[in-house]
Amino acid sequence: MSILQKLETLGLVLPEPPAPGGNYVSVNIRESIAYLAIQFPILNGEFKYQGRLGNDLTTEDGYQAMKMCALNVIAQIHHKVGFERVSGLNHIDAYYQAVENWDEAPKVVNGASDLFVNVLEDKGLHSRAIFGVHKLSRNFSVGLTASFTLLH
Amino acid sequence: MSILQKLETLGLVLPEPPAPGGNYVSVNIRESIAYLAIQFPILNGEFKYQGRLGNDLTTEDGYQAMKMCALNVIAQIHHKVGFERVSGLNHIDAYYQAVENWDEAPKVVNGASDLFVNVLEDKGLHSRAIFGVHKLSRNFSVGLTASFTLLH
Amino acid sequence: MSILQKLETLGLVLPEPPAPGGNYVSVNIRESIAYLAIQFPILNGEFKYQGRLGNDLTTEDGYQAMKMCALNVIAQIHHKVGFERVSGLNHIDAYYQAVENWDEAPKVVNGASDLFVNVLEDKGLHSRAIFGVHKLSRNFSVGLTASFTLLH
Repeated sequence: MSILQKLETLGLVLPEPPAPGGNYVSVNIRESIAYLAIQFPILNGEFKYQGRLGNDLTTEDGYQAMKMCALNVIAQIHHKVGFERVSGLNHIDAYYQAVENWDEAPKVVNGASDLFVNVLEDKGLHSRAIFGVHKLSRNFSVGLTASFTLLH
Repeated sequence: MSILQKLETLGLVLPEPPAPGGNYVSVNIRESIAYLAIQFPILNGEFKYQGRLGNDLTTEDGYQAMKMCALNVIAQIHHKVGFERVSGLNHIDAYYQAVENWDEAPKVVNGASDLFVNVLEDKGLHSRAIFGVHKLSRNFSVGLTASFTLLH
Repeated sequence: MSILQKLETLGLVLPEPPAPGGNYVSVNIRESIAYLAIQFPILNGEFKYQGRLGNDLTTEDGYQAMKMCALNVIAQIHHKVGFERVSGLNHIDAYYQAVENWDEAPKVVNGASDLFVNVLEDKGLHSRAIFGVHKLSRNFSVGLTASFTLLH
């Protein structure tokens, strides 16, 4: 089953991959690793889920926001590499903006982790780091960086 | 000398590797790199060194907390990969929670760096990044992410 | 054209690569990847651009600070690896300290991105992540981590 078919069975549609917001590339392939630029909850050009978790946004909002970041990661790989070349997801770094005493980050980041595992199965297994930052660009509540190993 | 013997000569005991707190894996091997999930100062299931450096915790506490994170990194590799397969440590990202004017992070992160170099010697040499985050999960004072290159 | 000649045509001089401020190495080569430790806006031993963006420092200051970090990355690779061995830049993680409502981070990080692309051309293409941290060591306004793929 192709990624697009798999997404369809999950009721998901691949968004347009967001364009870079600076002098960098969204996907950088060096030897057998594809490095991705940070992805935000942007849906076909529209900024979503801006604000602070625990104040402007709930944990469920955060989960959906992280899922949207992960869909953008998948869209970037689909458009610029193709999943037939992918051996597997390596690691994700997940960033969030929250109020001081909010502590639901692991649940929120499962929005990305669940999507990767559901869509890519064994190729979607990954390690991850999560931390609450002071600020993300454009006041996005969450952001996500990933890298993939490619087949030779 | 094995890792366990080396730890013993240093008066250290390997803790149980902490289980993942979400839909990810603690160690993800892709080709010749082992990517680790963020490790916290958890000792056999018990959360340690929670709070903010410079307020709830001293620099010496932070050093011990980082050493505990590094021991968990070593425990993860020992249990899931084995050091006979390890070519060397690559890079560590070290995160901490501190009060505004506290500036002892390099000393604190040496708690991890010293351990890696003492236990793994040349294989423990690494580059590192350190930054003070807004918040870590479960109010941990420090966290640590690492990757290792494996032998073919 | 060598890196030094290229820098000269751009009116730039390579600084002394900063020494590590702890028990780590500035450049760690494992197989075909060179991992770099975080670089700060240090010019030949002198700390520059300390403070918070949007308060003590302007966006243009931040751009110059990021450019200085990138020059230190280039200096580290030049002195410890040599650009004849470099296949290309992989990814950069850019960190900054700013006041709450400051949102010019992509422009600031272009200070590093522009330099890499101008000096290294195709070998300088990279993906990137940016996030506003709570605090950087020595009150530096910005910091930069990078890795490079080496030729076999």
